[in-house]
Amino acid sequence: MKIVISMEMEDNKLKNIENILKEVLKNIKPSKEEMERLQKMANTIIKEIWNIVKENNYPVLDVLLVGSSARNTNLKDDYDIDIFILFDKKVSEDELESIGLDIGVKVIEKLNGFYEINYASHPYVKGKVDRYDVDIVPCYKINFGEKIISAVDRTPLHHKFLKDRLNEKLCDEVRLLKAFLKSLGLYGSDVKTKGFSGYLCELLILHYKSFINLLKDVQNWKLKKIIILDDIFKLYENVDIKNLKKFDNSLVVYDPVDLNRNVASPLSKENYCKFIFYSQRFLKNPSIEFFKDYKEKINKILEDREHGYRLVLKIPRKDVVDDIIYPQMEKLQKSINKIIAKNEFVILESKCFADDNYCYLYWEFLVYKLPKVALREGPEIFKKERVEKFLKKYEKVFIKNCKLFAYTERKYCHIIDLFKDIVNGNLQNISIPKYVDPKKGEIEELSNYG
Amino acid sequence: MKIVISMEMEDNKLKNIENILKEVLKNIKPSKEEMERLQKMANTIIKEIWNIVKENNYPVLDVLLVGSSARNTNLKDDYDIDIFILFDKKVSEDELESIGLDIGVKVIEKLNGFYEINYASHPYVKGKVDRYDVDIVPCYKINFGEKIISAVDRTPLHHKFLKDRLNEKLCDEVRLLKAFLKSLGLYGSDVKTKGFSGYLCELLILHYKSFINLLKDVQNWKLKKIIILDDIFKLYENVDIKNLKKFDNSLVVYDPVDLNRNVASPLSKENYCKFIFYSQRFLKNPSIEFFKDYKEKINKILEDREHGYRLVLKIPRKDVVDDIIYPQMEKLQKSINKIIAKNEFVILESKCFADDNYCYLYWEFLVYKLPKVALREGPEIFKKERVEKFLKKYEKVFIKNCKLFAYTERKYCHIIDLFKDIVNGNLQNISIPKYVDPKKGEIEELSNYG
Repeated sequence: MKIVISMEMEDNKLKNIENILKEVLKNIKPSKEEMERLQKMANTIIKEIWNIVKENNYPVLDVLLVGSSARNTNLKDDYDIDIFILFDKKVSEDELESIGLDIGVKVIEKLNGFYEINYASHPYVKGKVDRYDVDIVPCYKINFGEKIISAVDRTPLHHKFLKDRLNEKLCDEVRLLKAFLKSLGLYGSDVKTKGFSGYLCELLILHYKSFINLLKDVQNWKLKKIIILDDIFKLYENVDIKNLKKFDNSLVVYDPVDLNRNVASPLSKENYCKFIFYSQRFLKNPSIEFFKDYKEKINKILEDREHGYRLVLKIPRKDVVDDIIYPQMEKLQKSINKIIAKNEFVILESKCFADDNYCYLYWEFLVYKLPKVALREGPEIFKKERVEKFLKKYEKVFIKNCKLFAYTERKYCHIIDLFKDIVNGNLQNISIPKYVDPKKGEIEELSNYG
Repeated sequence: MKIVISMEMEDNKLKNIENILKEVLKNIKPSKEEMERLQKMANTIIKEIWNIVKENNYPVLDVLLVGSSARNTNLKDDYDIDIFILFDKKVSEDELESIGLDIGVKVIEKLNGFYEINYASHPYVKGKVDRYDVDIVPCYKINFGEKIISAVDRTPLHHKFLKDRLNEKLCDEVRLLKAFLKSLGLYGSDVKTKGFSGYLCELLILHYKSFINLLKDVQNWKLKKIIILDDIFKLYENVDIKNLKKFDNSLVVYDPVDLNRNVASPLSKENYCKFIFYSQRFLKNPSIEFFKDYKEKINKILEDREHGYRLVLKIPRKDVVDDIIYPQMEKLQKSINKIIAKNEFVILESKCFADDNYCYLYWEFLVYKLPKVALREGPEIFKKERVEKFLKKYEKVFIKNCKLFAYTERKYCHIIDLFKDIVNGNLQNISIPKYVDPKKGEIEELSNYG
C-alpha cells in the first residue's frame, strides 16, 4: 500500500514538473519568426562570404553556420551567429589568419556592421550586424579522427556530431537545461563563470534523453562522476574504459570528437556541487522559480542579514579581458587570504568581481580586531631539536598538553593595518599578478561594525 | 678530537653542576641543631603517647615517627612531625578511631598545643605544638605482603622500606630533588598541586642513586614511562613484568609495598612534562636559580606582556578543603570553556584558584566580541538526510567546498553576556558542582582592552 501511495505521489509530482517545464519552455524557446530572421541573416552572411571567396579565389572548402542557433538549441533573445570558414590543411596558418580576417572584415563592412578583432586560437572577427553578434572564425577542415591543428578546428566536428543526433524534442530539453543553469549562474564555461558550456549541455541531454532524466540521475552523482556517451563505443573501435585518459575534475564527460578532452573541465567543483544541490531542491520542491534568476533570489536571502566588518580593495583595471583579469584577481585574493589567516583574523566571506574600470576584492570578517598579545604553538617537549629552536625564537614560553607555547606580540591588531601594508607594498610573501596590482589599490570600509 | 673536546666540556659542566648542588644543599638541609630539636620534640610526644596507652591499657602495638623528618630527607624549615600509632588487626575500626583520637587530643593538650580533627582514611588529630605541625594518626600494624585495611596502613611499611635503604648521601640527593621540584611548583601530591609526593622523590633517588643521574635519564623519558625498582625483584618471587597491573598515567612507579599501586598516579601529565622540560633546561644551562622559586620567575616573565580582555568569576567559597574545592572548580571551568568555544569566543588562558573566602575562575580572551552574524557548517551536499535536516533548521544556506553552510544569528556578541547568563542561571548544559555554584558568583572585568 505504502508503495502505491508513494508512486501516486511521485506521479503527481512528475505531472507538476512537466507542467512547469512546459511553462518554462514557452518563455525560453525562440519563436519561429525569431529563428527565421536569424537564419535569414546567417544565409546572407554566408552568401557574402562565398562572393568574397570567389572574387579573391581564396582556398576555402566550406562555410558553416555552427553553434546553438544553427542546431536549434539556442535560448530566446540569443542573437549569436557563429560562422566558421573551413580551409584546406595545406594552407599555412599565416595565410589562414590573414584570409580569415580579410573575409570577416569585408563581410561586416558590406552589411554595414561594426567589428573588432578578437583572439582565440588565432585572431578572428567579432562583428555586430543589426541586433546580431556575428563571429567569423577561420579554421582547418578536419575529418573525424584526424588530428586537429588549432582548438577551433573541433567546432565543425562538434556541430556535425550533434546535428546528426539531436531532434526537436531533444533540442527543447537542451533549452530547459540551459535555462535552469543560466538561472542558477552556472551556464558558461568562461573562467569567470566556471560553469557548463552549451556543448556540454547538449551532450548531457543526448546521454540522458531528457532534462528530468538528467536531474534524477544527478541525485546520485558524487565527486569524479564519469560519463561516456554510448556513441563513443559506436564511433571508436575497441574503446577500453580502463585505458581512457584520466582527468582530475569533479565531472568528466569525454568529448566524442576527441577522447583526450574532458568537455566538463572548465566546471569548478563548487559549481558542480551547486548543480547537484539545486537539482535535488528542484525535484523535491518543483517550482518555476528555479528558472527565473534563482541565483539573484538566493543572494538576496543571503545578504538580508547583519554583517561583520567589511572592506573592499579597489584596484584600477588594466585593459585586459575577463578571462585574464578574473584568474588573476582570484589568485591575488587567495594569496591575501593566506596572509589574513596567518595573522589570525577570521574571514566570513571573500569574493571578487570586476567592472570596466576597477577590480573589487571584497572581504567580510568575523574577527577583524585582536589584542596585541599573540600565542605561538611550539613543538612537543620531547622533540629536542625543535625545542631548542623554539626557545631561541621566543622568551615567554610555557607548557600545555606536552607542548611548548609562547606569548609574543602580533604585528597587526586591526585588519585594516594589514591592508594598509598591502597597499603600501610593505608586505612580503604576497604573489602579485601582472594585471592586478594591489599597490595601486585603495581600501574602502563598508561598515564599521563594533 | 671532537669527542675529547666535548667530553671536556661535559666534565666542566658536571663540575659546575656539582658546585651548584653543593651550594643548594647548604641552603636546604636542616642544621644538626634543627634536626636534634625536632627529634627531641618527637621523642617527647612518643613518650607521652606510651604513658597514655599504659594508663588506659589501650591495645597499641607500636608508636612510630614516620615521614621525611624521621628518615632525614626533610628540607630546612620543615616542621612536620608525623606519628603513627599501630594497632593490632583484631581491634575494630570504631575502636581504633576513638582510641586514636583520644590519644591524639590528650597528647596535644598535655603539651599545651592546639589541635583539630582532620579526615584521611579515618579521622585523626592534627596538632600544633610550638612551631611543629604534629599529625597523630592511628593505623593497623600490617606485615609486609599482608593485605592493608585502610590506606594509611601502608605508611609504616613505606617508612621501613626506605629506612632500610637510604643512607646520608642518598638523603641529600632526595633533598635536592625535592628542592628542585618545590621551586618549580611540582612538589606535592595533593589535588591542587598534582605533583610529586615525598615518597615518590625518595623512590626515584633510590632507583637512580643521585639527583643528576635521575635528571640525565629524564632526558629520554616519554609519555607512559615505567619504573620498576630492583628491590621489587628481590622482595617478590617471580615478578613477571608483563603481568604487573597496567596504569594509564604519564609516569608509573610501582610501589614496592603494594604492586597494585602507582606511586606517581597523582602527577598530572602537564606537570610530568614540566619536570622533563625543566630538567632539560637545568642540564643545558645549570644555574642555582632553578632552585629559587623558579615558578614565580617564569610567571613574572609570562605576565610581563599586553593582555587580552580578562574577566574573573568570583564565587563565595563553601567551607570545604582544597582537595574538594579544586577538582570542582576545575570541572566547572572546563564545562564553561566548552560553552565559550561553542559560542566561538577564543580563550588565551584560563585558570582558577581559591583563597579562604572565594573561588576565582579567571579567563583571558583573544576573541571576546563577535558580529551578530554567525556561520554554521553543515553536511556535504551528498549526505541527503543530513542535508534535509540542515535545511529545516536554517534558511540562509549556501554551498562551499561541497558542503552546506548557513548564516544565522549568534546569541552572544560579547563574552560578558554569556557570563551574565551563567551567573543568572539562564544557561543550560552547564554541569554545576556541589560546592562551586556559579549562580552565586559575580563577574569582574580586569581590563577593557579594545
